[in-house]
Amino acid sequence: MRLRNASLAAASKLRPSAALKERVRRPAFLSKLRTADELAPLFNNDDYIGWSGFTGVGYPKMTPTAIADHVQEHNLQADPETKKKFNLFVGASVGPEVEDRWARLDMIARRYPHQVGKDVAKGINAGRIEFADKHLSMFPQDLVYGFYSLKKKHGDPKKPLDWAIVEATAITEEGHIVPGASIGATPEILQSAEKIIVEVNTRIPNLEGLHDINSSFVPPYRQPYLITHPWDRIGTTAIPVDPDRIVAIVESDRPDNTGPNSPENDDSRAIAGHLINFLSEEVLAGRLPKSLLPLQSGIGNVANSIIGGLADGPFEQVQVWTEVLQDTFIRFFDSGKLSFATATSIKFSPEGFDHFYSNWANYKDRLLLRSQQVANSPEIIRRLGIIAMNTPLEVDIYAHANSTNALGSRMLNGLGGSADFLRNAKLSIMHTPSSRPTKSDPTGISCIVPFASHIDQTEHDLDVVVTEQGLADLRGLSPRERAPVIIEKCAHPDYKDSLKDYYERALFECLKRGAGHQPHMLRNAFKFHTNLMAKDSMKVDKWD
Amino acid sequence: MRLRNASLAAASKLRPSAALKERVRRPAFLSKLRTADELAPLFNNDDYIGWSGFTGVGYPKMTPTAIADHVQEHNLQADPETKKKFNLFVGASVGPEVEDRWARLDMIARRYPHQVGKDVAKGINAGRIEFADKHLSMFPQDLVYGFYSLKKKHGDPKKPLDWAIVEATAITEEGHIVPGASIGATPEILQSAEKIIVEVNTRIPNLEGLHDINSSFVPPYRQPYLITHPWDRIGTTAIPVDPDRIVAIVESDRPDNTGPNSPENDDSRAIAGHLINFLSEEVLAGRLPKSLLPLQSGIGNVANSIIGGLADGPFEQVQVWTEVLQDTFIRFFDSGKLSFATATSIKFSPEGFDHFYSNWANYKDRLLLRSQQVANSPEIIRRLGIIAMNTPLEVDIYAHANSTNALGSRMLNGLGGSADFLRNAKLSIMHTPSSRPTKSDPTGISCIVPFASHIDQTEHDLDVVVTEQGLADLRGLSPRERAPVIIEKCAHPDYKDSLKDYYERALFECLKRGAGHQPHMLRNAFKFHTNLMAKDSMKVDKWD
Repeated sequence: MRLRNASLAAASKLRPSAALKERVRRPAFLSKLRTADELAPLFNNDDYIGWSGFTGVGYPKMTPTAIADHVQEHNLQADPETKKKFNLFVGASVGPEVEDRWARLDMIARRYPHQVGKDVAKGINAGRIEFADKHLSMFPQDLVYGFYSLKKKHGDPKKPLDWAIVEATAITEEGHIVPGASIGATPEILQSAEKIIVEVNTRIPNLEGLHDINSSFVPPYRQPYLITHPWDRIGTTAIPVDPDRIVAIVESDRPDNTGPNSPENDDSRAIAGHLINFLSEEVLAGRLPKSLLPLQSGIGNVANSIIGGLADGPFEQVQVWTEVLQDTFIRFFDSGKLSFATATSIKFSPEGFDHFYSNWANYKDRLLLRSQQVANSPEIIRRLGIIAMNTPLEVDIYAHANSTNALGSRMLNGLGGSADFLRNAKLSIMHTPSSRPTKSDPTGISCIVPFASHIDQTEHDLDVVVTEQGLADLRGLSPRERAPVIIEKCAHPDYKDSLKDYYERALFECLKRGAGHQPHMLRNAFKFHTNLMAKDSMKVDKWD
Repeated sequence: MRLRNASLAAASKLRPSAALKERVRRPAFLSKLRTADELAPLFNNDDYIGWSGFTGVGYPKMTPTAIADHVQEHNLQADPETKKKFNLFVGASVGPEVEDRWARLDMIARRYPHQVGKDVAKGINAGRIEFADKHLSMFPQDLVYGFYSLKKKHGDPKKPLDWAIVEATAITEEGHIVPGASIGATPEILQSAEKIIVEVNTRIPNLEGLHDINSSFVPPYRQPYLITHPWDRIGTTAIPVDPDRIVAIVESDRPDNTGPNSPENDDSRAIAGHLINFLSEEVLAGRLPKSLLPLQSGIGNVANSIIGGLADGPFEQVQVWTEVLQDTFIRFFDSGKLSFATATSIKFSPEGFDHFYSNWANYKDRLLLRSQQVANSPEIIRRLGIIAMNTPLEVDIYAHANSTNALGSRMLNGLGGSADFLRNAKLSIMHTPSSRPTKSDPTGISCIVPFASHIDQTEHDLDVVVTEQGLADLRGLSPRERAPVIIEKCAHPDYKDSLKDYYERALFECLKRGAGHQPHMLRNAFKFHTNLMAKDSMKVDKWD
């Protein structure tokens, strides 16, 4: 291996701290102890690198920072000969102090499959970073299949990644990795990497027992996930890994750099109210059990209001099968109404984490983390009959939704797991405010549009659309039935007439030419959007 | 039950034929023998009716025809007081002599979730028939959930359907139903119906043993499908049904009204050639086993060319996990290269069926039919690592595809199972000719467009796009990388420059405003389509 006979041959005589010795239970690994600064120069231009981490939790902090320091101190990016750009693969997003910094230093050539960083997004939209978002359930398998390394010509041809840099809160006697408060794609990233660096974080508690790690097989050897309840375990509490591929252990003492959760507001509370009413009616009609079915909720203030509403709500013994837990889940747990929750990441605020770690005994038996391939698995989502709730940028009058690209072209964060859940849930719900402000118009953007400017969720995938204005139940409706309902129930009053007019004109024109299944005026389909670009508002004067 | 004490109380003294007595092994059921004509008047306006059938095979022929005769003879549709329009639910399409005839008589108020009929499509696009297509794997479960009967106010509130009319090739001693050459949604339609009519078809052989019927549970009681190979059986050979709900048995002697399969042509053979090369290279690279992974192929001439190509091709012991088998599968079986095939329907031509039934012993151990909920299950498709191949109407330069609506509005047949397979397959492939003719221009329609006018498959779902021009391998590519590859490899030469020009202008404009992830000029995104409407050709003069 390149690393062995290179600079690390004459390794520094680092002494492990007492904390680290407690965490690394395979003593031989302590001889691999290195500083991140020693490792930084080993990374070559065009290297394929995987990191642990998901929604800014459980990512490596020391090595990526040291690599950035190295690049910056040596002014490497100034010269095409020394410039280093890497192909970076992470389950989802990581802390801005590493990912955004790499983007600012133009160190990212390629970044899959999700990101949440102002500078990463800037790089993507400026054409400096190649980005493709992918269903989070599929990304790890496609990585293992080699689909992201078809162009990689160097290194071990059997390994899609040159490096994995992962955070652990412990290493077991067998040398297995106990992750932090997320799992994400870490098992597959470890499986795919030629060389592995483990950052053992001694500041975060040892979270052993929180995780359920299953082996990831490749077809034709893949097996059913034998899960029928959120609490079912199908794996082990740590990630098995070939010890020979672990080239360095780094001690880390940095916290997950999460920010505060998004505060609720009147709109988010109104949306949550509509939704809780709807769920109550479904229970009354006998279409949902009294304890509901396992819930998935996204990230953001509406998700917070919904979970907060459920903590005060009429349902008991609720279960959660989701991607990420936010702070309001603490309240939901403490209310006694949440019986069990499973996810692939816990994204609490710093205060949330403090509370959580201090009261660990209260939560540990009601909580399980899984890999994103399992947490977002269509197989399990459909089997359990999940109730899925996510926020789009915009929804159109026939219930296609845009989750990713503003005005069809500008990437925000990526698809995430939204489509994994919405395609397969028993009830697929999208919630959004009916409008958003622009600089010059407090309702300049309508979140209900004639034709979504980018489509991530199709009309075949949504059952319910809800805004602060109301809730549209689309189940069983044809497109011609859906449009009037979505406009009437969900659109902001400033846009209702305009949307109705679009629909009626489109209906008239399309029926006339025998093409009225999903009526559109294609020449005007994006007029809301082009108007926004030209006039800072989606309010169009007239349609033709 | 309404039927019992109504007109059937004084039932005719029908004598069962010898053939029928052989097929109906539960003698008590023979007392329920009725003629279709007796049953026809029992159907009321706004009734919810489910039929067996999938891709024009295994559907009821006698009763629907008798109902149409009844409506026509009594001129019921002339008067709003007597007019009968029904809500019709079938796994997929059925023979034109029943479905299209009902549409011509304006007897269909609502039709879910798929159809293949000139007159049905006409009714949908003229606004007379409410239609919504849905992933074929989800339709049966949503039916059972009651999502399609939210507006139904009459009848048993626990039963989404008033009637099921299903075809059988036998009834077992227990009264269980042995279907014909399709299963589709029949198990769930039987489960959902208040009253059941069974048409026992004595002209088609008894196909007992061909089917694998599993129980369909509802969350939170749903169980894993314990299938890891196409030949795994998880159920029984007939559909269990409550005998009390069977209100009539009808003898049927009519064949499935299938037509000839679509003939291959130069384009379809060129596409198949590109695809078989691609698969061979994947085997060489070690990303596919030598026998490939289970194949799904759609309907049509390209599918025929691919399967024909495989019958002569380099792969041995191939397995098939698909929705529908067409005639070329007979050749594939006979070549010795196909080891096992499973589907939810066998849509052979009349000659194909003759050959198949005459040589039943050769095929019966290498073939299994399943319900569409299982055949199209994301769970199994992903587990097996299917290679999925389907035809779109159009694909855009970023690999979104339109499978359903011409010019965004005119419904052709529906989504079918395309998205079940493409979302979950290991390799998701769409194949299409690069262009199609219009009346005035032999290449007036480009199947590669700037922005798909309706999106059923998202950019997150396709790995490969192939036309007779060539094959674009999109795995691991960002949108900015995808567009040039799709245009270069797949577009018809008549459209290449125009598409390149669109992409380059869009890239320039979007990068300038920091929105260059998926470059578009929204004002021009549908210009190919509006040009086609105005000038019978997608060839645009210039972009601005």
